[in-house]
Amino acid sequence: MMKLGAFLPAPGHHVAAWRHPHARPDGGLDFDYYRSLVRTAERGRFDMVFLSDGAGVRTTYRDAEELSRQGRMVHFEPLTLLSALAVHTTHIGLTATASTTYNEPFNIARKFASLDFLSSGRSGWNVVTSVTDAEAQNFNLDRQPDHATRYDRAREFMDVVTGLWDSWEDDAFEYDKESGRFFDPDKLHILHHQGKHFSVRGPLNVARPPQGYPVIVQAGSSPDGQDFAARWAEVVFTAQQTLDQARTFYRGIKKQAAEHGRNPDDVKVLPGTFIVVGRTRAEAEDKYAALQDLVDPVVGLGLLTGQLGDVDISGHPLDGPLPDLPPTEGSTSKQQLIYEQARREGLTIRQLYLSVAGGRGHRFLLGTPESIADELEEWFVGEGADGFNIMPDYLPDGLDAIVDLLVPELQRRGLFRTEYEGRTLRDNLGLPRPAFGAARHPAERRA
Amino acid sequence: MMKLGAFLPAPGHHVAAWRHPHARPDGGLDFDYYRSLVRTAERGRFDMVFLSDGAGVRTTYRDAEELSRQGRMVHFEPLTLLSALAVHTTHIGLTATASTTYNEPFNIARKFASLDFLSSGRSGWNVVTSVTDAEAQNFNLDRQPDHATRYDRAREFMDVVTGLWDSWEDDAFEYDKESGRFFDPDKLHILHHQGKHFSVRGPLNVARPPQGYPVIVQAGSSPDGQDFAARWAEVVFTAQQTLDQARTFYRGIKKQAAEHGRNPDDVKVLPGTFIVVGRTRAEAEDKYAALQDLVDPVVGLGLLTGQLGDVDISGHPLDGPLPDLPPTEGSTSKQQLIYEQARREGLTIRQLYLSVAGGRGHRFLLGTPESIADELEEWFVGEGADGFNIMPDYLPDGLDAIVDLLVPELQRRGLFRTEYEGRTLRDNLGLPRPAFGAARHPAERRA
Repeated sequence: MMKLGAFLPAPGHHVAAWRHPHARPDGGLDFDYYRSLVRTAERGRFDMVFLSDGAGVRTTYRDAEELSRQGRMVHFEPLTLLSALAVHTTHIGLTATASTTYNEPFNIARKFASLDFLSSGRSGWNVVTSVTDAEAQNFNLDRQPDHATRYDRAREFMDVVTGLWDSWEDDAFEYDKESGRFFDPDKLHILHHQGKHFSVRGPLNVARPPQGYPVIVQAGSSPDGQDFAARWAEVVFTAQQTLDQARTFYRGIKKQAAEHGRNPDDVKVLPGTFIVVGRTRAEAEDKYAALQDLVDPVVGLGLLTGQLGDVDISGHPLDGPLPDLPPTEGSTSKQQLIYEQARREGLTIRQLYLSVAGGRGHRFLLGTPESIADELEEWFVGEGADGFNIMPDYLPDGLDAIVDLLVPELQRRGLFRTEYEGRTLRDNLGLPRPAFGAARHPAERRA
Repeated sequence: MMKLGAFLPAPGHHVAAWRHPHARPDGGLDFDYYRSLVRTAERGRFDMVFLSDGAGVRTTYRDAEELSRQGRMVHFEPLTLLSALAVHTTHIGLTATASTTYNEPFNIARKFASLDFLSSGRSGWNVVTSVTDAEAQNFNLDRQPDHATRYDRAREFMDVVTGLWDSWEDDAFEYDKESGRFFDPDKLHILHHQGKHFSVRGPLNVARPPQGYPVIVQAGSSPDGQDFAARWAEVVFTAQQTLDQARTFYRGIKKQAAEHGRNPDDVKVLPGTFIVVGRTRAEAEDKYAALQDLVDPVVGLGLLTGQLGDVDISGHPLDGPLPDLPPTEGSTSKQQLIYEQARREGLTIRQLYLSVAGGRGHRFLLGTPESIADELEEWFVGEGADGFNIMPDYLPDGLDAIVDLLVPELQRRGLFRTEYEGRTLRDNLGLPRPAFGAARHPAERRA
């Protein structure tokens, strides 16, 4: 069965989504709006909602006037939002992004363990390293740490966090009122981590999470990112534009996971997929054209600059080619993806920003439920994907259309569930529950 | 009107609460349990629930066997729990403790702003500096920073957090779909904070909170703590044992607040009050005796050690006097309070730990609804308190008894509300909503 994530930034993925007549530009801070979206995704039997995050407002615009054209400025912090959504949903997984660069592992281990208890085992953590100077400048730095340092910290961060989740064995707490013994002292394990980036004693002041560990999600596609994913990720979110590329990536990740002593089936690869679906192809084309017409050139260029790792291209003519780019300390894999697309398709800067205005470098599918189901099926059966992280164009209509039109078509083909298999996110994704101490001994993860 | 907080650590304040036959020792990680408690407090028209917190498990016990006698080991992280409770309640305030010592101000500003939106203006932040080496050791340190350094950081932390909450004016967001302008660029204010402990550019990626700023709560009672409270706190939680002491503290805080250019009415002083209430005095005494009988000496001594700032007294006989104590880098005001009590009442170590087994140095009231209401009224009309942070003995029974017996008696006397005055925590506490930029200019806070 296909696995589906619902990637739901308010008010949608298209950069001009907020200007659509039906969009709610203030939705990012409205709980009722989010509750309605997530219940729609749960009605559609999605495995999980997925919230991206950044610890700052992107500030690559020249001034506040330019920035004010941008439509995604303020929104809930994902862990607080998902905690509230946890108690208004019953089956759907709840995956929040949190940065290893600007948090301490003890705080992150606690919060995700707490969310896993609030949701009775439906939490996921999208592990990221932060990739902008704008974020660094909110955390006592002038510029972000370099790529290698960020990943080095992230790897040690995972050792600490999983170690803290293993502070207590699953059945450590006895609550024996008679004898006065609250827990079995043999089942407490104090971490005593001493490393290069962190010294963390433990134990965690939360019990072992219902899922053992929350599901680990990861999206880095650079060599460092792929190695990290192969070692740690159970869901890999990736940007792939052709089936050949997707297959190469898919096989690479599974192979590297096996080299880390893991069962390749325990890593689910979900390429991001930007979708515009209509009852007819013409309806879908009209929807998309309406959104493209709303793209402000300032916003388009700002988006492209971000995609290129905050490389300044403002001096180049919009209707000329993309210049050669310097290396970035931002996301190297994303920069390369966009650059290759520009060269491959011979796009001007303007054509390039319009082409990423929806999916930001992710695969873009436009059409009818049948045509889009064909395209998803091709990648799924062709071993390019275990499923997809679905990116609606604008909300709530885009998600409604996917749930009401596309999901039934996938179900009809037997590609997607009609009922949830279980109650935890692991149950639904078909991932094993890690045994106590599993993170320290990857070989134990084998099926 | 009196202001009342419900201070609700699962499974209650008494150190042996978890061993009570009716107590739920696993309640700290059970959302339904907390939802039920907080709805009871809301039915009782409490101003707020108050959750204390520490970033670690206290490790002053000699070994895991001793530690296993202790009953408060694992619980929800407060911000995730209150986010979930926010969407299952309508009027009660939600105050979480978060440390300025082991967090970054950008993260804290975001999370509390997010909680304020989730709860439509019912969030409060209990600002603490962390006071144990056990926490320090979870954050890359061997020992905690000294008292003065912690407060120096905390003061700058507040400048940054309030500055970030003022990133956007209240009406900054226009969402003008036609013109494509999302916000008014004149209403964005980038902080550019450069200080001794922090460099934070801003802006925050959350709009200005519904309450302007979440309500600031503070509990430090050392000279540094009182000065901090006078400058920043809108609710002061304090431990006072006699009316004379309480009056001195109350007048001191109000006077210092005035010296900071604030209206003294905008600082509400709420002494912590441990309550055992029964229909008759004998019933209350029986309840208390039953709890005291359940106190394990190892736990009693561990509790006392913590109250004394982690000073080791294990070499001294339980039935002898408390020895002279060295200075602590923990909570100096709490150490002094306990020490003075021991001397004043001539208590042995065992008698001392039994005396703090319930209220941990806070005022202790045992009796009938009438007698307890008399005692609360005396402090309230006697200018020792603006209200009380109520500490039930064990849960849920202790809170039920307070809501069903004591609250009606206070309402009958016209001392406490029968309906909420408004929808935000500020409305109910009678606190003004801070204007944009208020924190930078305390004089603007005058009524």
